[in-house]
Amino acid sequence: MNLSKRITAMQESPIRKLVPYAEAAKAKGKYVYHLNIGQPDIETPSSFMESIRNFEGKVLAYSFSQGIPELIRAIIHYYKKYDMHYEEDEILITNGGSEALLFAIIAIADAGDEILVPEPFYTNYNGFSSAVDVKVSPITCKAEDGFHLPSKKSIEDLINPRTKGIMLSNPGNPTGVVYTKEEIEMLAALAKEYNLFIIADEVYREFVYDGLGYTSFGNIPMIQDRVIIVDSVSKRYSACGARIGSIASKNKELIAQVLKLCQGRLCVPILEQIGSVELYKTSEEYFQIVNKEYQKRRDIVYDALNNMPGVLCKKPTGAFYVAAKLPVDDAEKFVVWMLKDFHVEGSTVMLAPAEGFYATPGLGKDEVRIAYILNENDLKKAMNVLKLALQNYPNKTI
Amino acid sequence: MNLSKRITAMQESPIRKLVPYAEAAKAKGKYVYHLNIGQPDIETPSSFMESIRNFEGKVLAYSFSQGIPELIRAIIHYYKKYDMHYEEDEILITNGGSEALLFAIIAIADAGDEILVPEPFYTNYNGFSSAVDVKVSPITCKAEDGFHLPSKKSIEDLINPRTKGIMLSNPGNPTGVVYTKEEIEMLAALAKEYNLFIIADEVYREFVYDGLGYTSFGNIPMIQDRVIIVDSVSKRYSACGARIGSIASKNKELIAQVLKLCQGRLCVPILEQIGSVELYKTSEEYFQIVNKEYQKRRDIVYDALNNMPGVLCKKPTGAFYVAAKLPVDDAEKFVVWMLKDFHVEGSTVMLAPAEGFYATPGLGKDEVRIAYILNENDLKKAMNVLKLALQNYPNKTI
Repeated sequence: MNLSKRITAMQESPIRKLVPYAEAAKAKGKYVYHLNIGQPDIETPSSFMESIRNFEGKVLAYSFSQGIPELIRAIIHYYKKYDMHYEEDEILITNGGSEALLFAIIAIADAGDEILVPEPFYTNYNGFSSAVDVKVSPITCKAEDGFHLPSKKSIEDLINPRTKGIMLSNPGNPTGVVYTKEEIEMLAALAKEYNLFIIADEVYREFVYDGLGYTSFGNIPMIQDRVIIVDSVSKRYSACGARIGSIASKNKELIAQVLKLCQGRLCVPILEQIGSVELYKTSEEYFQIVNKEYQKRRDIVYDALNNMPGVLCKKPTGAFYVAAKLPVDDAEKFVVWMLKDFHVEGSTVMLAPAEGFYATPGLGKDEVRIAYILNENDLKKAMNVLKLALQNYPNKTI
Repeated sequence: MNLSKRITAMQESPIRKLVPYAEAAKAKGKYVYHLNIGQPDIETPSSFMESIRNFEGKVLAYSFSQGIPELIRAIIHYYKKYDMHYEEDEILITNGGSEALLFAIIAIADAGDEILVPEPFYTNYNGFSSAVDVKVSPITCKAEDGFHLPSKKSIEDLINPRTKGIMLSNPGNPTGVVYTKEEIEMLAALAKEYNLFIIADEVYREFVYDGLGYTSFGNIPMIQDRVIIVDSVSKRYSACGARIGSIASKNKELIAQVLKLCQGRLCVPILEQIGSVELYKTSEEYFQIVNKEYQKRRDIVYDALNNMPGVLCKKPTGAFYVAAKLPVDDAEKFVVWMLKDFHVEGSTVMLAPAEGFYATPGLGKDEVRIAYILNENDLKKAMNVLKLALQNYPNKTI
């Protein structure tokens, strides 16, 4: 009586596996600055809970498998701002972006198929893929290049008859990279040339800094039959616990097929859908305020890292992550050491070691992801702790 | 650019695929008695929404991947009534029973493996299995036997090296069968002998009538390392739209592995978990009232069916379904005919054709599932419509 190979082979969350060390540190009275997880501290717009409190139904019944029409329409309206135009039968509401990703993977790939993913990647891309026997084929991106894509040729070399799609987040988690229009067009051309789907995880769409432009895969007309846009209210409206995501595609056959998976799980909770209708009505001003805040934090983290000897980090321009190379032997050991053996006046820092964000063995061993989801003041203190930790870590490499 | 074989091969929901005919009937002013879907009309206990309305968090953050401790403890407490004893690390909260089933299937079976399922079965067993390349191997049960299990020998004949488990609902959907203690023990013995897991979907545990006893797979000590109990608040507390389910198993390694899948989708919505804590505190009296109501309805449907010439139906003793053989050429055609071409004073009835509940081709063609989820009065009217429809259907077989 053995468990399946696919579940035992599935990667454990590199973000969550060090949690016991953080718990132990806290139990000893240490204060831990959590920069390891993408949980924003920004308040969820109050319209979310207000609309849920007003729910008057006597029977909390099943709802539409594709999602409630009000939410689908709210998302259609939202996309118009980005010059993306969907009809009601081109959108499905999902249990977070996570379910959207899982369903998209199942829809485009059979057991044994491959999906190209720029690495380092959001670790659940690998988790979900291996749970359903799909292989992540990594396109290696480098800290030195600010995690921008390598040449078209080097990506072409990875394509084989079992390659079914390209999956990526833009802006990027864990790197904060925002792909240029040229990069998006290069991938679009590859998709067309090699007959691939594109699973475009654009949940950080609003989080682009320095006045940079943003190109969605939804903006490239020639590939709309092969683009699957994954979205979520989690980061956009700081509503991670709502678990409301969506799939959008102009490929109506794909939507019809994924609807079968949606019918299998019957429906997404109705209350959060009602709340999310209000979230999608949030004013533009909200994003201006939030973005200004994140950009300020990004600057604090980036400037601090750049003043630490031996740290390599190009300035990221999106999401709320910085990926950096540290002058340490092993980033996971370093994080554990900070939690177990180090503190500055009773405080320490938790980061996400980046090795788990890579599929290529050995890569990312000296890298970390820092999520700048604390206020300015705490972030400055946390960066100071990190700086001192790097000075004091016994296995530093400079 | 093709969609995956597994998604295109996935069965469409037989319950939902006739919905357009019902919509068309309603558009023409017909009243449709919906006996086709397991959506109870019973009110959700008000404690659910009350506790949600009191939620005061400013940031709707991610929560524990395994579920909130309060809900896990509430479920542990609930199980004690049934002499089932779990610890906190033996329970995971899921997005409905649906996700619990999907995760359990992935955990015990690899692509190409098989799971034994008594047919007719809850159609999503097949849907989820084929979505992840697992084959449902049907144990055929017959209307003539009240859908009780066939002999041990005939089940043994279905087992081969790729058989990894047995999956079933008890009480049964779509049949209303409640397996006897002897049947449960027979399956337990088979599981032990052939080294199989048992995925026991017991979401209708409370809905057992006629004072009959109920044996859970959680009550057979010798197999607790191989039993996975799937549960849900959907039917138990008439809270289908909450999408709160759970997995319970004394096999801690299995729970640890499934937790990786839970971490992949981050968490289950926090609000419904808070509401469900209150649901699990619902008094015993609630079930007595609800059960009395369902038993009365069961009697109305069963008595009415037994008075229709040519209908075959053994008295079911659980859940809120009756599966019956009708004297028609094709139950799906008959249901469509009722929606399109038949009415009694402007009313008609929608049932679920049973063919989609079978994996063996050709079986169930003249069978339907009737969900008795309407009040007594409507149910009587609906049964009268069905009786007259059977008299007037042009392709009847008697």
